[in-house]
Amino acid sequence: MTDIDKILENADGALNESLERLFELVRIPSISTDPAYKADCRRAAERIVADLSAMGFSAALRETTGHPMVVAHFTPKGAAAKAPHFLFYGHYDVQPPDPLDKWTTPPFAPEKRTGDDGVVRLYGRGTADDKGQLMTFIEAMRAWIALTGSLPVKATILIEGEEESGSPSLLPFLKANRAELSCDAAFVCDTNMWDEKTPAITTGLRGMVKDEITVTGPRIDLHSGSYGGPAANPIRVLSKILAKLHDRNGKVTIPGFYDGVSELPREVKAQWRKLKFSDRKFLKDVGLSVPAGEKGRGVREQIWTRPTAEVNGIWGGYTGAGTKTVIPSQAHAKVTFRLVGKQNPANILKSFRAFAKAEVPKDCRIDFAAYGSGSPASEIAVTSPIIRKTAQALKQEFGRETALIGSGGSIPIVRYFKDTLGMDSVLVGFGLNDDALHSPNEKYNLSSFHRGIRSWVRILAAVAK
Amino acid sequence: MTDIDKILENADGALNESLERLFELVRIPSISTDPAYKADCRRAAERIVADLSAMGFSAALRETTGHPMVVAHFTPKGAAAKAPHFLFYGHYDVQPPDPLDKWTTPPFAPEKRTGDDGVVRLYGRGTADDKGQLMTFIEAMRAWIALTGSLPVKATILIEGEEESGSPSLLPFLKANRAELSCDAAFVCDTNMWDEKTPAITTGLRGMVKDEITVTGPRIDLHSGSYGGPAANPIRVLSKILAKLHDRNGKVTIPGFYDGVSELPREVKAQWRKLKFSDRKFLKDVGLSVPAGEKGRGVREQIWTRPTAEVNGIWGGYTGAGTKTVIPSQAHAKVTFRLVGKQNPANILKSFRAFAKAEVPKDCRIDFAAYGSGSPASEIAVTSPIIRKTAQALKQEFGRETALIGSGGSIPIVRYFKDTLGMDSVLVGFGLNDDALHSPNEKYNLSSFHRGIRSWVRILAAVAK
Repeated sequence: MTDIDKILENADGALNESLERLFELVRIPSISTDPAYKADCRRAAERIVADLSAMGFSAALRETTGHPMVVAHFTPKGAAAKAPHFLFYGHYDVQPPDPLDKWTTPPFAPEKRTGDDGVVRLYGRGTADDKGQLMTFIEAMRAWIALTGSLPVKATILIEGEEESGSPSLLPFLKANRAELSCDAAFVCDTNMWDEKTPAITTGLRGMVKDEITVTGPRIDLHSGSYGGPAANPIRVLSKILAKLHDRNGKVTIPGFYDGVSELPREVKAQWRKLKFSDRKFLKDVGLSVPAGEKGRGVREQIWTRPTAEVNGIWGGYTGAGTKTVIPSQAHAKVTFRLVGKQNPANILKSFRAFAKAEVPKDCRIDFAAYGSGSPASEIAVTSPIIRKTAQALKQEFGRETALIGSGGSIPIVRYFKDTLGMDSVLVGFGLNDDALHSPNEKYNLSSFHRGIRSWVRILAAVAK
Repeated sequence: MTDIDKILENADGALNESLERLFELVRIPSISTDPAYKADCRRAAERIVADLSAMGFSAALRETTGHPMVVAHFTPKGAAAKAPHFLFYGHYDVQPPDPLDKWTTPPFAPEKRTGDDGVVRLYGRGTADDKGQLMTFIEAMRAWIALTGSLPVKATILIEGEEESGSPSLLPFLKANRAELSCDAAFVCDTNMWDEKTPAITTGLRGMVKDEITVTGPRIDLHSGSYGGPAANPIRVLSKILAKLHDRNGKVTIPGFYDGVSELPREVKAQWRKLKFSDRKFLKDVGLSVPAGEKGRGVREQIWTRPTAEVNGIWGGYTGAGTKTVIPSQAHAKVTFRLVGKQNPANILKSFRAFAKAEVPKDCRIDFAAYGSGSPASEIAVTSPIIRKTAQALKQEFGRETALIGSGGSIPIVRYFKDTLGMDSVLVGFGLNDDALHSPNEKYNLSSFHRGIRSWVRILAAVAK
């Protein structure tokens, strides 16, 4: 029996105690958005500090202008003192539980229940997001320390308490503690597996840049009887701009838009083809059936690896009941661009604006109001050693190839870690699509928790080398 | 001296008394939209009934569910008993006077003032719209009766009290009194001259048909990170429909849209060219400089004689402050079509809907909510005898060719008279563009009032033959 097997055995044996510790944490209603739960947030942080201190971490509750952070360090002795240094991230705050009447059991009275399908699930707010997930790496470390007295890597744990309310204190905190928190890489445990049987690492996140357009035509609203025809209508000008953003094949027509976008490596495409995924079901679930977007590219490819130009809101003229025969002075739209590869947010914004301006008649005006400067895509090369080692460890645990997947959205923490601390993030999590995050009856499968702990036991060993 | 000259002389001599009668009417604050002035509306109607009765009309106040109507008939004796029968329309209700502090003299204390330019103006709410205008034909009839004891035509006078609040009782009243009110033609006195020196008859009014589009894509709002790309965006679908409504020359692209639209007769174009009008100034006044709409057609031609497809309102997705990365389930737009010639509102609506549907992906839905069935354009052939005679009478009074003009808007009464009573309307009025209708310091030039009376003296004679 190798060391690893012994540690795994140890973790298996301690599963009920691990579960009880998770439940203790879930019982604390650490709702970060509601000031009424401020003391509870602090209590959750204190509990984690106490736990980690007991395990041998140098752990402390760190004040911010909002809810406190938990920061803990573990420096192994002996040979491992020269091991790489990793940061492990999670968040102790949870979403509000409303609507309460839709919960089968109270949100902060966690319960283990076996379904008709024989699957054991842990119910309660935060069982998955993110208390259950963060406890997988803490419990794995506990198992390592219990058996070996140490960890195979240098570990820094950062647990924040404001993830569900936009992480206002995070960036200032990272900046203020740059030296202390900069590691070789970060593990972020807040994502899903591909499915119950297939582990996953999220290696690509789309970036984003946002803009708002205002087209101004006549200086006042006009009567469409007296002016309809010769007077420019800003809604029509705006519609023309938006309609021209895509060609008939769904490609974005802004000049230079695809600069820095490259095709997927063949091996990734091949792997994705093996993952069970139905484009049809993906669309059907939201009432659609015809794949939109770029012709010839499937749902996964588009969402994980292709940029978009999307209109998120539009308004102008009369929008009340009945009719009003007005030619409005202004029309507005909000647009976002999801970015991939090496697309540069500033360049995209600039090209878009030039493109839009060109559609505007000389006597109309177009104004833009960007929201921030945007962020490029986050990608870790699927061939990087840390990804390779983590994927290998997960494969050993699950007996299946680890899916290296993308994500259509942006996870700000990844960008913060890269920009502020100069480190890549490895996104490993054990959630499932049906975990009901942010909804009533949030759950985490017992197997997610158990195999999550086991996976981290293996990952710690794998990345130590 | 002919009869006409004597009547005109009589009218000139009685001008001060005519003016006093107008001022008496203006002093009654007959604001139809404000229930607080209900009794005043009735009082204004009663005053007109009394006046017309004293002149020899068989006049009565007629109840409606809103403010009362005034209906009066005059049947001439002798040879004129076989003369044609005309209806004369005006309205005794007025707009609210707010903002009161912007009036130089109180709105319901009418005053005659001479400006620095030497022009004498009558100030007060309703001096122009429409009390001053309706009194021009009443005082002209008074002059006729005073001198000849009769009128040269059969006359029915219809004065309503709800024009400023959408005329809710008018159509039911016309329907209920069809036989009594149906005449050979109607004179509607509620429009303007071309300018101070040039009389005008409005012979064309654009029709209108309205529609509202709702495009539904996904059955719920989607996160643009998780769905952006493969999911259809209804704002983009809607923009495409709207952008496609016009070609690059400003022509509407809906198939069959121009069916029933004919080019202007050459003589009308020639007359219009003689009228002083600056396309540049028209646009500049509202902050524009580039003529939109159909290429190669001027402002007057477009507004008076060309149809439009206009977007009056658009909304969908997130329209609040900041950003929300949503792909909305729905997007909406309100559209109106101004119609000319023989364009058929039902056909236009049908073609538009087919056109819009063709742009919608199979898995999206488009719904339409029309507001009423629309109304075709109202046009009286400029060569019709009544127009010819009226134009000739006006030319005699002003010593200038009468401008036969169009109007971009719709005047519902014209449509009601045509559809319900089967009669054409001749729109003759003496207002000027600077009369400040619906605004503080509404005025009517004394010359509008005086020459208006004189014009009607002549018109009554002209159309009697």
